[in-house]
Amino acid sequence: LIAQTIAEQFESGILAGVSVVITAGPTREAIDPVRYISNHSSGKMGYALAAAARDAGARVTVISGPVNILPPERVRVVPVSSALDMLQAAQSEQEHCQIFIAAAAVADYRPAQVAEQKVKKSTDELTLTLIKNPDIVATVAAQENAPFTVGFAAETQDVEHYARDKLNRKKLAMIIANDVSRNDIGFNSDDNAVSVFWPTGEARYEAMSKQQLARHLITLMADRYQEYLLNRTENTHA
Amino acid sequence: LIAQTIAEQFESGILAGVSVVITAGPTREAIDPVRYISNHSSGKMGYALAAAARDAGARVTVISGPVNILPPERVRVVPVSSALDMLQAAQSEQEHCQIFIAAAAVADYRPAQVAEQKVKKSTDELTLTLIKNPDIVATVAAQENAPFTVGFAAETQDVEHYARDKLNRKKLAMIIANDVSRNDIGFNSDDNAVSVFWPTGEARYEAMSKQQLARHLITLMADRYQEYLLNRTENTHA
Repeated sequence: LIAQTIAEQFESGILAGVSVVITAGPTREAIDPVRYISNHSSGKMGYALAAAARDAGARVTVISGPVNILPPERVRVVPVSSALDMLQAAQSEQEHCQIFIAAAAVADYRPAQVAEQKVKKSTDELTLTLIKNPDIVATVAAQENAPFTVGFAAETQDVEHYARDKLNRKKLAMIIANDVSRNDIGFNSDDNAVSVFWPTGEARYEAMSKQQLARHLITLMADRYQEYLLNRTENTHA
Repeated sequence: LIAQTIAEQFESGILAGVSVVITAGPTREAIDPVRYISNHSSGKMGYALAAAARDAGARVTVISGPVNILPPERVRVVPVSSALDMLQAAQSEQEHCQIFIAAAAVADYRPAQVAEQKVKKSTDELTLTLIKNPDIVATVAAQENAPFTVGFAAETQDVEHYARDKLNRKKLAMIIANDVSRNDIGFNSDDNAVSVFWPTGEARYEAMSKQQLARHLITLMADRYQEYLLNRTENTHA
């Protein structure tokens, strides 16, 4: 019955005429021509959100790190590798969208220097100096005329505390928090369970398929986005 | 004509009754529960060698790092993640094989400490201390009654110099050298071109499919392995 209600909402095109940009997958940060730092993100959640947003009537662009799954049909894909590549693509795409969903697991750090040749293993110990990558979702949300910006938080402890802190600090409209300490859900899994926080409320979704969860999340975002538009109009007219 | 000759050799079962163990793919070295260091190895070359060895009549086991390709049929697969996992599997499998081919791109280094929680990005710079991983192919070749051990070398410069140095230092029977500075071949490519060195000779193969190259390499290994058996017998009777 709930699935049917959701399907009906989707059929009514709750995001018709809206442009949505979604980042997905991991990034890869080069150490040298052969080695890199990455993470276990599969891109499944971002791609499922892209399919759900498309089904809700949106025009969808996915900025995708290297993944091994096929992109949804009728979705534009901008392939990238590193966090710097992804930032550049995000800044170029955000101008043309109303909703920006940062589902990618962007590497927080990258090697300070990229060796041009493969690093030879001569010493027993090697020190790799990493520097902070730009915060893509915070950069997007900080722009003048920023889109309705949704972030993700992958946490292993104190999930709500860290998620609400990110929501406020990065000036996001909404944040979706995974507890990645659970092995049964998230990252490489087909299922996911999340908590969603926005300045005035929260929602929780128990473990379900990423496809099903994506439809719930897109419905929630569309609802919050409508309210955000109303508030913005009221503020403009005040 | 050459392809036909090779096919005939394979039909004659040049490795009938021989057990071959092949390592393939990259390894992943955990930084924390979500991040890791890895490399661009696709596993294609190792899997192609497994299929070619199987077609030549060998019993084949592949010790495989995380890859996104399907293993060849009628080949036993031992899945592993880190270099330490791969070493353990290699030591357990080498006792039961006559030929050991180390085609995996094993991470030379791993983080000295694996954080139990996701590392929080609080500082602008982060220093990651890496320690040397065990050298799997050298460990196998150094055993008493070691199998006929074949290594790979991925180099970006002075290919022959570094490859011959590894051949001697690690006491290998043969080494197969890729020039990974070339973009058209190797790692993620479907094609490969290699130079092969053994103590008394060398061979070069121009760019061709990894399947075709694998058949040439298995033919060469079978030939060298026969000679190695003869020498060993002569030495025993001397």
